[in-house]
Amino acid sequence: MNSPLRLGIAGLGSVGTSVVRLLQDHSGNLQGDGGPVEIVAVSARDRNRDRGLNLDGIAWHEDPVALAQSDEIDCFVELIGGEDGPALSAVEAALSAGKHVVTANKALLAAHGLRLAEAAERNDAALNFEAAVAGGIPIVKTLREALRGNTISRIYGILNGTCNYILTRMELEGITFADCLADAQKLGYAEANPTFDVEGLDTAHKLAILTSLAFGTRIDKQAIFVEGISSIQPEDIIAADELGYRIKLLGVAQRTESGIEQRVHPTMVPKDSDIARISGVTNAVAVDGDFVGSVILSGPGAGGDATASAVAGDISDIARGDRIAPLGRPADQLAPYRRAQMRAHEGGYYLRLKVRDRPGAFATIAKQMADAKISLASIVQRNRRPSSSAPRSDDFNDQPVTIITHDTTESAVRAALQGIEAEGQISEKPQMIRIEKL
Amino acid sequence: MNSPLRLGIAGLGSVGTSVVRLLQDHSGNLQGDGGPVEIVAVSARDRNRDRGLNLDGIAWHEDPVALAQSDEIDCFVELIGGEDGPALSAVEAALSAGKHVVTANKALLAAHGLRLAEAAERNDAALNFEAAVAGGIPIVKTLREALRGNTISRIYGILNGTCNYILTRMELEGITFADCLADAQKLGYAEANPTFDVEGLDTAHKLAILTSLAFGTRIDKQAIFVEGISSIQPEDIIAADELGYRIKLLGVAQRTESGIEQRVHPTMVPKDSDIARISGVTNAVAVDGDFVGSVILSGPGAGGDATASAVAGDISDIARGDRIAPLGRPADQLAPYRRAQMRAHEGGYYLRLKVRDRPGAFATIAKQMADAKISLASIVQRNRRPSSSAPRSDDFNDQPVTIITHDTTESAVRAALQGIEAEGQISEKPQMIRIEKL
Repeated sequence: MNSPLRLGIAGLGSVGTSVVRLLQDHSGNLQGDGGPVEIVAVSARDRNRDRGLNLDGIAWHEDPVALAQSDEIDCFVELIGGEDGPALSAVEAALSAGKHVVTANKALLAAHGLRLAEAAERNDAALNFEAAVAGGIPIVKTLREALRGNTISRIYGILNGTCNYILTRMELEGITFADCLADAQKLGYAEANPTFDVEGLDTAHKLAILTSLAFGTRIDKQAIFVEGISSIQPEDIIAADELGYRIKLLGVAQRTESGIEQRVHPTMVPKDSDIARISGVTNAVAVDGDFVGSVILSGPGAGGDATASAVAGDISDIARGDRIAPLGRPADQLAPYRRAQMRAHEGGYYLRLKVRDRPGAFATIAKQMADAKISLASIVQRNRRPSSSAPRSDDFNDQPVTIITHDTTESAVRAALQGIEAEGQISEKPQMIRIEKL
Repeated sequence: MNSPLRLGIAGLGSVGTSVVRLLQDHSGNLQGDGGPVEIVAVSARDRNRDRGLNLDGIAWHEDPVALAQSDEIDCFVELIGGEDGPALSAVEAALSAGKHVVTANKALLAAHGLRLAEAAERNDAALNFEAAVAGGIPIVKTLREALRGNTISRIYGILNGTCNYILTRMELEGITFADCLADAQKLGYAEANPTFDVEGLDTAHKLAILTSLAFGTRIDKQAIFVEGISSIQPEDIIAADELGYRIKLLGVAQRTESGIEQRVHPTMVPKDSDIARISGVTNAVAVDGDFVGSVILSGPGAGGDATASAVAGDISDIARGDRIAPLGRPADQLAPYRRAQMRAHEGGYYLRLKVRDRPGAFATIAKQMADAKISLASIVQRNRRPSSSAPRSDDFNDQPVTIITHDTTESAVRAALQGIEAEGQISEKPQMIRIEKL
């Protein structure tokens, strides 16, 4: 029997607690192949908090960096979180000391992944991070190992449960973003400060990691076009439904002639597509490869237990002796990331304009679209029925106009909208939602 | 740079041809981590067939066994197919000679998997078979590696594209099984001899492998309850639709108190479940684990290119130096498979009876159900509207009766149906379709 892989776990929040529980309850699941696994030390902020764990015989470190470097351990499990601070210091210390690292920290990897991968390779250590993207869904392993024969053309997914929960409820209940967010916060599905989730930054971090794995490029989270879901109105969701679409916050990375597009934005997806059917906090990731075709993985994207499942898989690989370059290829063989400009993005667009009710407005819109060489798939004007009790306002007679374009470019759409705005034909900022072909 | 992993590929049908093409076109995808990969020899039945491949510089063997043992190769890729015969002889020869083996052969593994796993372990060789189950979907890797921290309660899936294609078309077009099968054969989606697919045997082979990986038990394909789809009538599909279900051929392995259930049968699944939405030749596998919750993988279950993607992933793992026990745990640590008897299966049932139009028939049915302690969720009798042009027959007035039971046991349902048949109240063999809770 091999000597056990000695683990040091830093961070005993919901994920850390689940990881300890899994390893203690299910040690037999991990054994058998590769050596056994043993928790020898932990570190967390508050020693006295009751976590419902039996930590007898397990050393306690106040300082995660000291734990990371400790001779007691072979593998450091980082569940502290955060892009910098103790998580970064501890992971760096562990890798420098030649310890393997398992982390669930997407922010850390999106910011420092390349450098950490280099450090791991230099020190002959593993750096595994299945839990950093899409929780319990094994998308890192799928890209890094299972599908690596493929040349990947696109990867896209629902990577943030909070946003998908909000969009699903907005659709089912017809409520506004603000009301839905408030309720999600009450139920614990959204943070007190929801910006990171609802403005797409969390999705962007995960996408940055997936892009590197899928395309063999260096991680570049700065090069991601990011739009969140806070601008989505109930009328957009209704219009999408009528047109055969649902609105999802997607992270998409796509090979194009001019480079690799990375974008996070509310997206109209055909109702009968697999991704449209992912509801609530569930995550899903789809990969389009030249040999495999399209493969979709779905499951819980967050939560202590699901994340612990991914952490345990990573630990098991290390215990077995599997060593893979953290980003699939040695870091010095990763191609520089070549950004495709968002203005060159091609696809269909949904536009919702509030058009002033005055002569020539429609003609102006049609002309601006034609000048930008955009051909329209549909244009719908819905006359609002004034209710006698509704307060009259200046824009009472403004008409919501919904436009679906055929494939065009982002720059053409922006040019047309600028022209329409410049002519003063619309009374509020236009809504623009990209349509994804699936 | 490591010395290349030298491959010998036996079988150049559609999968073999795709594998050669992938390895030649995408050698860069596999390299970088682990050593490079090189095809040094192939074997196939007909040397002169034009496969559109450039085999210059690659040795040709008439005999796959000779190739498997050849000193030229490090890894034998078996794409011949078949449970016994040359595939078995060649894989045995390769493992005995200490060569790694990659195979796409589900029949071989379902029949001899345990013995081959032992041979691989004895000879310190890898035995990888991602392509044997669900084509391009990485379910073997997901079970064997990613989810191994979990205790799995159930795994189920749509594992045969032919059956799912037929059931999808029967549903969409309202045509009979026989018409649909004939069309599927014309289009190349079903074999000339379709028994293996439509009677559920192919699904059973794949399920036998998944069960071993999910539950850490020895493979036992004899212990699978198997029912195919040939008895499914358009009226069953219509009734399912009205009741909120779709009919899918599922392979299900489930932990129960009395052992592990393995069953393949047409199954009613809720229309809004993920598995219900898998249409056409697509495959899907769902895993319920205690930590991860429910994870679903879907994608192409067959086809040369998708299968080649899986084979390439397996080869890449070997090239990197990863060695895992073929069945996830050393073969001598696999638990004996303890079969749960199908009669003990618990769940809801759909029953369709053709009831003779005579006094007391309904009372008899109700009494038999009550005697078997089966409680009914619904019972529907549909009076057929006789068309004046339809030929009259003896059972012209027989009434189709559709019953949905609450949870009960297979033995109770069988007892009730036997009682009803014994009393002569039904004019043809009853239809019974199990309902799966998802």
